[in-house]
Amino acid sequence: MIVLLHNDLDEATRKELLEKLQSWAIQRGVSICGFGTGWGDSVELLPADGATECDYAIEIRSFAGVRAVLTQDEPTYLVAPRSGSRTQVRFRSAAFGNNAVSAIAGPCSVENLDDLLALGADLVAAGATALRGGAYKPRTSPYAFQGLGKLGLEMLATVREQTGLAVVTEVMDTRDVELVSRYADALQIGSRNMMNYSLLREAGAVGVPVLLKRGMSATLGEFLLAAEYLAHAGCEDILLCERGLRHFDPDVRNLLDLSAVPALKERTHLPVLVDPSHGTGASSLVPSMMAAAAAAGADGFLVEVHPCPSRSVSDAGQALTPTEFATAMDTTRAVLDACGRKFNAAQAPTTSN
Amino acid sequence: MIVLLHNDLDEATRKELLEKLQSWAIQRGVSICGFGTGWGDSVELLPADGATECDYAIEIRSFAGVRAVLTQDEPTYLVAPRSGSRTQVRFRSAAFGNNAVSAIAGPCSVENLDDLLALGADLVAAGATALRGGAYKPRTSPYAFQGLGKLGLEMLATVREQTGLAVVTEVMDTRDVELVSRYADALQIGSRNMMNYSLLREAGAVGVPVLLKRGMSATLGEFLLAAEYLAHAGCEDILLCERGLRHFDPDVRNLLDLSAVPALKERTHLPVLVDPSHGTGASSLVPSMMAAAAAAGADGFLVEVHPCPSRSVSDAGQALTPTEFATAMDTTRAVLDACGRKFNAAQAPTTSN
Amino acid sequence: MIVLLHNDLDEATRKELLEKLQSWAIQRGVSICGFGTGWGDSVELLPADGATECDYAIEIRSFAGVRAVLTQDEPTYLVAPRSGSRTQVRFRSAAFGNNAVSAIAGPCSVENLDDLLALGADLVAAGATALRGGAYKPRTSPYAFQGLGKLGLEMLATVREQTGLAVVTEVMDTRDVELVSRYADALQIGSRNMMNYSLLREAGAVGVPVLLKRGMSATLGEFLLAAEYLAHAGCEDILLCERGLRHFDPDVRNLLDLSAVPALKERTHLPVLVDPSHGTGASSLVPSMMAAAAAAGADGFLVEVHPCPSRSVSDAGQALTPTEFATAMDTTRAVLDACGRKFNAAQAPTTSN
Amino acid sequence: MIVLLHNDLDEATRKELLEKLQSWAIQRGVSICGFGTGWGDSVELLPADGATECDYAIEIRSFAGVRAVLTQDEPTYLVAPRSGSRTQVRFRSAAFGNNAVSAIAGPCSVENLDDLLALGADLVAAGATALRGGAYKPRTSPYAFQGLGKLGLEMLATVREQTGLAVVTEVMDTRDVELVSRYADALQIGSRNMMNYSLLREAGAVGVPVLLKRGMSATLGEFLLAAEYLAHAGCEDILLCERGLRHFDPDVRNLLDLSAVPALKERTHLPVLVDPSHGTGASSLVPSMMAAAAAAGADGFLVEVHPCPSRSVSDAGQALTPTEFATAMDTTRAVLDACGRKFNAAQAPTTSN
Repeated sequence: MIVLLHNDLDEATRKELLEKLQSWAIQRGVSICGFGTGWGDSVELLPADGATECDYAIEIRSFAGVRAVLTQDEPTYLVAPRSGSRTQVRFRSAAFGNNAVSAIAGPCSVENLDDLLALGADLVAAGATALRGGAYKPRTSPYAFQGLGKLGLEMLATVREQTGLAVVTEVMDTRDVELVSRYADALQIGSRNMMNYSLLREAGAVGVPVLLKRGMSATLGEFLLAAEYLAHAGCEDILLCERGLRHFDPDVRNLLDLSAVPALKERTHLPVLVDPSHGTGASSLVPSMMAAAAAAGADGFLVEVHPCPSRSVSDAGQALTPTEFATAMDTTRAVLDACGRKFNAAQAPTTSN
Repeated sequence: MIVLLHNDLDEATRKELLEKLQSWAIQRGVSICGFGTGWGDSVELLPADGATECDYAIEIRSFAGVRAVLTQDEPTYLVAPRSGSRTQVRFRSAAFGNNAVSAIAGPCSVENLDDLLALGADLVAAGATALRGGAYKPRTSPYAFQGLGKLGLEMLATVREQTGLAVVTEVMDTRDVELVSRYADALQIGSRNMMNYSLLREAGAVGVPVLLKRGMSATLGEFLLAAEYLAHAGCEDILLCERGLRHFDPDVRNLLDLSAVPALKERTHLPVLVDPSHGTGASSLVPSMMAAAAAAGADGFLVEVHPCPSRSVSDAGQALTPTEFATAMDTTRAVLDACGRKFNAAQAPTTSN
Repeated sequence: MIVLLHNDLDEATRKELLEKLQSWAIQRGVSICGFGTGWGDSVELLPADGATECDYAIEIRSFAGVRAVLTQDEPTYLVAPRSGSRTQVRFRSAAFGNNAVSAIAGPCSVENLDDLLALGADLVAAGATALRGGAYKPRTSPYAFQGLGKLGLEMLATVREQTGLAVVTEVMDTRDVELVSRYADALQIGSRNMMNYSLLREAGAVGVPVLLKRGMSATLGEFLLAAEYLAHAGCEDILLCERGLRHFDPDVRNLLDLSAVPALKERTHLPVLVDPSHGTGASSLVPSMMAAAAAAGADGFLVEVHPCPSRSVSDAGQALTPTEFATAMDTTRAVLDACGRKFNAAQAPTTSN
Repeated sequence: MIVLLHNDLDEATRKELLEKLQSWAIQRGVSICGFGTGWGDSVELLPADGATECDYAIEIRSFAGVRAVLTQDEPTYLVAPRSGSRTQVRFRSAAFGNNAVSAIAGPCSVENLDDLLALGADLVAAGATALRGGAYKPRTSPYAFQGLGKLGLEMLATVREQTGLAVVTEVMDTRDVELVSRYADALQIGSRNMMNYSLLREAGAVGVPVLLKRGMSATLGEFLLAAEYLAHAGCEDILLCERGLRHFDPDVRNLLDLSAVPALKERTHLPVLVDPSHGTGASSLVPSMMAAAAAAGADGFLVEVHPCPSRSVSDAGQALTPTEFATAMDTTRAVLDACGRKFNAAQAPTTSN
């Protein structure tokens, strides 16, 4: 059980509260940890033997200076559902949540500028409002192509200037966060790094929206707590993205969990996106899973599109061609219509970043 | 690798073929098993060390009397995709596949006739064409309510007479197959029995359609082979039903695999249904997963509806009320419309079975 | 929550108890099901909204005529831990549990008598006391070799006569239980049928020991409840067998859960065996997993041994040769020694069955 | 498919090789990526449609300047099995692999010095040669106790001085690697960061041994490639540690994969350790799983021990008391003896670090 303190307590009130908690804990045989170690905005308590969190939560919530008490049932605070409307995240023409829906599309890796420019025009024509593409790629082998780095970021920025597409790109290292955030409209944190809490803290503090992908075997609770790390670091514009889970069927690359869309929306005010490309690993399944995600209530899509999938340097089997993407967008648009929602309209490109 | 023989070989031709296979096998160091053991319509071969199935398949396919050669990549024959149109399964007003879509709805267990009659009327009004309800229930505990048995079957038949709804109900024991088939329009084989091959053989041979639910950790390949058991026993009207997989998230009862819908349709001509109730285990997620299944291409739905879910004797948390079901049907109908499909229309009840 | 009644209640007391339960339930808003439906030795209750099982269990346990109250935390009765010593299951020279350890070994399928006799002699020499071998095989494909049936049973009996090895063999169909039990010293129920409750009831009632294999994605709780079905049907000699779980790593056939050994022993008095052959699917891993199982406290082993694994008609990759098996038994014997346990000694063969 | 170049090619030879690869690729319709992007010690190739890696590997291996060709079947190079003896990793009195076995024990989190000193003495007495304890803790909630940081590192160093125990402690952030390596005898990279490739590169280059824990749903192939990242960065002293996998049974915290021990040893020359504490999440299962790991061939153990587990600030349920640990060490020692191996002996503490 975790006790969150109000951020703006004066030193005397804070000291008083901590002392009160400490003497209360001694009386009840409760252990306290984290106290006074620099993580001063929260105190972690271990229930006494045989006791449950409920036995304490109501009482402690009444202490002056306590902002919230987090329990196993309700372990998040900043990302937990709010009364009133849901959060909408916007950057350039892209908008997600609270009835806005947008598609982010593009290649797995940024490979060369000409292809990317041509692709960008196709994506805009199909109705996408943002471009995805990896400049830093988390590759399972140290010898595999690791991305073009800064050169890739510059290519993405060029395509943005010419097409108006917003740029979403992955960051993998705390030391790259600042650099990537200068090029990207939104940072992507990939599945492999969902529990890289140092990276979450850094990305959450840099001041741009963050698209957080679910870990390949993360529970919904762990996913929401990873988002809480971002929120706790200061980020208000967080996109959650389901991207398929580890699966036991050797014929299936990943198992897309579409029920996560409505289940997450019951537990957070944040927009929820779906990546049907990594989520299935098979381009033939992507269009129907994109339509299904729309019907399930997804606030956006992350779709891999490549001018010539068989020449893609990574994830060849799951990328759509621009034509396949345009068709999938049309079907998805019809399903959104049936559900009373629609894609956000793209705006004309501007040269100012 | 399995060699299927033609069913109608005369004894001499059959003997000749088996001898040819045998001498061929000796030459190549291939082991044969199953030969002459009563499973005479197929011969199982073990590749010699270092050899692969492809090395043999083409050659053996040319032997006179060979119907098909099944390999790891294409292990099914009767349920494998056919050129031309997809199979449509029909019973009473219900139809599934090849553009027909129907909803099968009802309680987990048949409990009493009055409730069931009232519910039946609600289901018809909402657009369902078939009633589901367990008379024989597979319960994890031997002490839990195991269903009303024959009495339950009679209740289902009564509701059919008065509402026109077709009846789908589970059979668990080879010895009950004949009895249940006298009452049911379609037999259900549940997840726990997907690999009960004796039951598959018996149910496949009894002459009524069979709805086969995917095992809770079955691969798609295993699921299709279980359907092949039904087909091999003589059943032509098989419905496949995805119903959620075992999951690692303790907050989630089952993990619905909607990508199985398009993936199965690439590998079989059979209709594919979705059970969003067991598939999620949470009634609040059922309507959006039903709509998502429609967008994913599902040919039908199996939905738990109970007049008063909190009084249900089994699976209380996942049943919809009749009102919730009607609303979910409306949304699903709109999504089907957007995808160019629609629910099969119900017909008036008839008293003749 | 399930209320078990005493088996020997006279009709009047039973009626009184059921009426008392009924009026108690009405008062508290608790639903009752199963009442009077022929499953009369238990009553299933659904807690009222907001209530927990604990709220009721203590009270109901005090009602006259109540044998036990089963809750989610303690859902089993007959297989639950007993004060005093653990159960030992014995048949012929084989003994399992309460410090007895035995190895059951043999081919996946019974193929021919000469090989089986030669193998039997090798198994005895290596220290096994029981022979395994399938006469009825659950095969994923309907066209694969399904076993020799009754002929296979007769071969097993012949080997028993000549070697003294006890016979353990699988039964898959309720209608075969009686036949198989005439040949086998213990019936095996395979993973695919762990939740085939009809088969469990039939096998549990036939009067011979039953070896129950864990389902490929069964929780420990489900496994124990399957054993409770056997016990409820009258079986006192039950062997539980861990045999590997479904796994996400395509390079690994099954994931052996050795922690299930001590975990099950905390929750049941029954012996727990390990099948390292199916449990890993790779013969090179079997010897070390057998030794590890011994150290984990396993009461016995089920090991696939074949005179020439590469010619085996099923599961070729996981079988040991007789020589490899003898070496693995030696290592395992040394580990058992280190843990203060030892293999049960084999007795001379007798011709009387 | 990845082509590794020799590290010491002169510029002319390197250029010639790359040109040769390029023209070869054009002839065969193979795509090349990564070429000239700074990741110059390897070239990634995409097979042409319909081709397999084997079609190319032999040919390319013969090109002058090629060090190795990595394929899907053999994707690692530096950690792959070597002819001759297995690697032994040593730091202070601890040694792992090539017949050496050591136990690393201690609390989940470093909490206070007095407890840690007392515990250290107990661990030495029981036969441990290294101390584990987290100064930086990856916690699922941002509000939970995150460790004492540098203060914790200093406490660990003090215990080392007074007990002679080597220190193993986790690092989570690339920016902390240098600091932590000044205090630790071996860096630990936790499960959550197994695919944090930036951290692997940094930790692999700092010059101290690294203990790498398997990700909670990592395949063995992914685990070995993560180790290859460390090796590629320069680290020669790598310990692999199995620590339990994500599991579907809500009663079980993690599923310990002991078959990973022999399976990994077939695929790498590195030592393999087992963490039975996180691997089970239940202290009552730890001793038998530690003994089982010894029998399975583990080269070492990582065991959570806490002076008073119920007061532990993290992972209370899985820690052993010092007395329980001593008993578990005795059983494990007996099993090692039976397998012809033994624990490495501790040496007297020295004050020089």
